[in-house]
Amino acid sequence: MSAQHAVGIDLGGSNLRAARVELTSSTIEQHHREPVGEPRDPQTIVAKVARVVERLSPGAPVGIGIAAMLSDREGTVANSPHLRWRDVPFGRLLAARLGDRYPLTVTNDVNAIIWGEHVAGAARGCRDVLGVYVGTGIGGGVIANGALVEGVTNCAGEIGHTKVRWDREAAPCECGQRGCIEAYVGGSYLLARIARETGTAGTPADVDRLAAAGDPWASALWAELAPLLSITLGNAVSLLNCERLVLGGGVLSRTPALVALVKQHMAETTNGPSWGPLSVVQAELGDDAGLVGAAHLAATTRPSPVPRP
Amino acid sequence: MSAQHAVGIDLGGSNLRAARVELTSSTIEQHHREPVGEPRDPQTIVAKVARVVERLSPGAPVGIGIAAMLSDREGTVANSPHLRWRDVPFGRLLAARLGDRYPLTVTNDVNAIIWGEHVAGAARGCRDVLGVYVGTGIGGGVIANGALVEGVTNCAGEIGHTKVRWDREAAPCECGQRGCIEAYVGGSYLLARIARETGTAGTPADVDRLAAAGDPWASALWAELAPLLSITLGNAVSLLNCERLVLGGGVLSRTPALVALVKQHMAETTNGPSWGPLSVVQAELGDDAGLVGAAHLAATTRPSPVPRP
Repeated sequence: MSAQHAVGIDLGGSNLRAARVELTSSTIEQHHREPVGEPRDPQTIVAKVARVVERLSPGAPVGIGIAAMLSDREGTVANSPHLRWRDVPFGRLLAARLGDRYPLTVTNDVNAIIWGEHVAGAARGCRDVLGVYVGTGIGGGVIANGALVEGVTNCAGEIGHTKVRWDREAAPCECGQRGCIEAYVGGSYLLARIARETGTAGTPADVDRLAAAGDPWASALWAELAPLLSITLGNAVSLLNCERLVLGGGVLSRTPALVALVKQHMAETTNGPSWGPLSVVQAELGDDAGLVGAAHLAATTRPSPVPRP
Repeated sequence: MSAQHAVGIDLGGSNLRAARVELTSSTIEQHHREPVGEPRDPQTIVAKVARVVERLSPGAPVGIGIAAMLSDREGTVANSPHLRWRDVPFGRLLAARLGDRYPLTVTNDVNAIIWGEHVAGAARGCRDVLGVYVGTGIGGGVIANGALVEGVTNCAGEIGHTKVRWDREAAPCECGQRGCIEAYVGGSYLLARIARETGTAGTPADVDRLAAAGDPWASALWAELAPLLSITLGNAVSLLNCERLVLGGGVLSRTPALVALVKQHMAETTNGPSWGPLSVVQAELGDDAGLVGAAHLAATTRPSPVPRP
């Protein structure tokens, strides 16, 4: 018997959001939101998540999208700067706390988001999809043959760490390597650069308006960054031959001039036969995508769910 | 009832090779090889292929790996410089010629090869695989969640057209774009460069021996090209989080010093959490890989086989 409802959870650095999702229509029937707060040690967060799950939908499958680098399909968090966790067996801890009644799936938050767009949003009906979200950092998710690509250690989709420079001046990235696209276009790096070059607290959206109005500094910045992003996206599309590229996140949803420039460059950076059938679209579901996607992932039969405690 | 045998075909620019493959053991029971020859118009080739199929295994599923850029899952060839075909409905022509008895699958030759390595070679037992073959050109194949990634128009895996330079001096590629890794490391480009810089008809294998012996020119060439290839591979592995990277083809199977250098760079160009679990191996099945892979693809239930005529 397949479930009619599931609980989708988005565990970020600031907020714990959760929803009871009706799976046929992907409707959010009940919604919960609270600050992650302090302390944020694993036991405290596990207890918080478990309380929400028990209240929203007793016994329903539970899917969690977490702002973390995972290291397996059992929900082990290798690293989450947001939660300040390292090597935390989050999936096992939560499974032990919830008990056998709750089938449990833990995935990366961006993977949950793109799965939500696949089920009910901008990539509905598409079997091969690439999602790229430029917010504070850059995350991605890949769907191939209609299935989420999780990778061997559940950390597929890390398009933010695509190297776009490899000379001595390549920008250092928080991941410890150099030249990652995130270190050029990721929101936190971009804000720092804007502050450094203008002496103001401008946002990427401000730069976008300036560039659209012909401001030389803003235009030059976008002319530098658009090719880097278009190379990143074009190379991935050439490899995957996906039918849809979904763009989202706080930066790309507010920078239409940058997005237009990126698309224009992509015609030259994407292998012709893969550029032809591609449609590039904006994400549709906003903050709900991760909740809907996590709920659906939880309810889908998949190869490696979190083992029972 | 699933088939016990299938016919695997490798249709290249020089040779038409075919085999009757026993599917449980992946054993090649009968083998056929003939030159493609002239003329090579579609009707002549279709007749040639059909004759071989009818002789090898009447009524068995037929899988064809073709050295061509396909544009759908029905075996339409968008472009094959080797066969000098453009927009040829090869799958439909062959299906019409063979008739209903023969389930038919047409795939890119490199995709058939990596599927062969997955079923019976260097990627046996691996659910997430990237295969990269550097020969005359550069081809690739992706397996995710245990399934071949064909893409929306059956041209996934085109890692040879990954852009590694995008300045004004980026090398022109035969695909019509610039800066593709193939235009730097692909065998035909590499041979031309070696001839240009040394005035001799040296091979990549010669350069590799010279580099290993400390020759300054050869060492400098490898030091220039290894980072480009390692960026290409590392970015793809970071996106896919595959467990195995299979390297093959005429260039990479004869340049151990280059491969060692590429692996060394990959530790810096691959996202850490995806580098850890990755094993980089050489292809195992040689010329048989494409035959075995095509036969297995033909016998596997897949979403979009060539429709019956």
